[in-house]
Amino acid sequence: MRIHVQNPPDDRLFAVTPAQWQAAVARGPALGRLDVSFAEDDAGFAAAMQDAEVLLTWTKVVKARFPPGALPHAAPHLRVVACTSAGLDRLAPFDWLPENVVLLNNRGTHAAKAGEFAIMALLMLASHMPRFATQQREGRWESRFGSVLAGRTVCIVGLGSLGGAAARQARAFGMRVLGVRASAGAHPDCAEVHGTDGLDAVLPQAEFLLLACPLTPATRGLLDARRLRLLPRGAKVVNMARGAVWDQDAVCDLLDSGHLDGAITDVTVPEPLPPDSRLWRTPNLMVVPHVSSDDPATYNDRTLDILLHNLAELQAGRPAPNRVDPARGY
Amino acid sequence: MRIHVQNPPDDRLFAVTPAQWQAAVARGPALGRLDVSFAEDDAGFAAAMQDAEVLLTWTKVVKARFPPGALPHAAPHLRVVACTSAGLDRLAPFDWLPENVVLLNNRGTHAAKAGEFAIMALLMLASHMPRFATQQREGRWESRFGSVLAGRTVCIVGLGSLGGAAARQARAFGMRVLGVRASAGAHPDCAEVHGTDGLDAVLPQAEFLLLACPLTPATRGLLDARRLRLLPRGAKVVNMARGAVWDQDAVCDLLDSGHLDGAITDVTVPEPLPPDSRLWRTPNLMVVPHVSSDDPATYNDRTLDILLHNLAELQAGRPAPNRVDPARGY
Repeated sequence: MRIHVQNPPDDRLFAVTPAQWQAAVARGPALGRLDVSFAEDDAGFAAAMQDAEVLLTWTKVVKARFPPGALPHAAPHLRVVACTSAGLDRLAPFDWLPENVVLLNNRGTHAAKAGEFAIMALLMLASHMPRFATQQREGRWESRFGSVLAGRTVCIVGLGSLGGAAARQARAFGMRVLGVRASAGAHPDCAEVHGTDGLDAVLPQAEFLLLACPLTPATRGLLDARRLRLLPRGAKVVNMARGAVWDQDAVCDLLDSGHLDGAITDVTVPEPLPPDSRLWRTPNLMVVPHVSSDDPATYNDRTLDILLHNLAELQAGRPAPNRVDPARGY
Repeated sequence: MRIHVQNPPDDRLFAVTPAQWQAAVARGPALGRLDVSFAEDDAGFAAAMQDAEVLLTWTKVVKARFPPGALPHAAPHLRVVACTSAGLDRLAPFDWLPENVVLLNNRGTHAAKAGEFAIMALLMLASHMPRFATQQREGRWESRFGSVLAGRTVCIVGLGSLGGAAARQARAFGMRVLGVRASAGAHPDCAEVHGTDGLDAVLPQAEFLLLACPLTPATRGLLDARRLRLLPRGAKVVNMARGAVWDQDAVCDLLDSGHLDGAITDVTVPEPLPPDSRLWRTPNLMVVPHVSSDDPATYNDRTLDILLHNLAELQAGRPAPNRVDPARGY
């Protein structure tokens, strides 16, 4: 199999190295002969696409290289496009993707780090850390006590790799976890799981709200101003999904008015957030520059394990677990 | 037994209520007849001290009411002074305490909340949250990725109620915990336990340092500038002990120079920290207004359980578990 890895230029943290590749192949499933190439420049990409069957790369590379209609000509043998991101919303709509090409996301790479970020954020909100960061900007010492997480209710929207890891951590700390996802059904770490149509009934119970769903046509603007106001006074919110899943201005308004007690967001609209954005200065809001779920110490190893596992499944004629359904968007 | 509870004036969060007292007595050990009184003013205190045998109160009340030599005259029947704090360093030296009066601290009340604060702080430092709070003050979006805690080394100074809870959480997240305390000896959540004289050898291994010891003559200034410089470059530090345990200016210098990667401190010198303190503005340092270990939802219940348990032990002629040794200071 002919595989090409197109790395982003000058990314020392996340560029996949030949050594990482060899180690992954050594511990991975039997796949027959694998011919791999690596590049980070234009010429290397164009040359490799002449015969590559599998491309592992970043969403921004796919976006730039494959406008609608371009792929069949630019990469005539390509059968698998594997992205290093879990959320491929920047590649929607998927009109650039030929029907005979499998698109894989990187769901599963992020769980351990995302779970730690999630419980960190919940603990920070319980302990009023965004409030203290706001007070620190003003040089103001003002005590406010917080309680432990046990017994408190968190609503987690999205129960995939990120949301599932968040639910597991929250349950381990004794929280009551109410899950919301596209399709209802039991989850081992949730006391209840509701479909998205049950969200309005769950929000008034949510002392904590954590967003961890993919951005799709169905989730864009899901937490609009009306729904955010359904949260009880004093609620605390975390966004690890995408900035466009909630109405960011409404969140700021509800923090300004004191209806929301605190917020931590790893995602904004736009990214990077410009210096004059109100988010930087909204009280009791902490802005994190989209790093919640990426652990450079383990990222590439997990990415390659997932890719090789998916290739083995495809080779065996089974569905690829990370295949993206263009209709659902994830 | 004649017991008096002297509450601080106007403290809705932490004043002990008669209802809390009755509930604690109902679930507590058999102690015979208990006559309890409550006050928060001067007259109520003076009247109660005429016949009280046990006083439960705040360290600042003890400090103000019992200067050296005053107690035997002001409270002739008093045999037990129970404080609602775990750290009684503000009552040292203990020259005000007659030999026939037992002084109790409140060690044990804080473990659950302190453990959550500790793991929150370690997760925050692993995810560079103090750095992002600094960047937020400047409206600056700059990614920096962090790794999970598993496999990383934390040195915890102090393995009492707070440090023990921190060690338990750190171990649950897969960290290698190196404990340091006055007397060496095994601890179930530590890979190694060293005496204070081993601190210099442990510090160079500490990717994370967490201070959770009492402030005593032996720990005052323990982390001086020389010892802080023994930490490896990029080390991350948490102080849940007392501000005087470390050289606060040296910590700021090492953050300014970039030797330390980040810091979170719940304690400062002085408290409250004045608006012009350099701590508010030191990069990658988050200041928390001394709230790490107090959970108002559970504080008084645990305080009363501990007091009644200690009274039962004394009544049975056994040592009180929370008795403070004036020579050690805790």
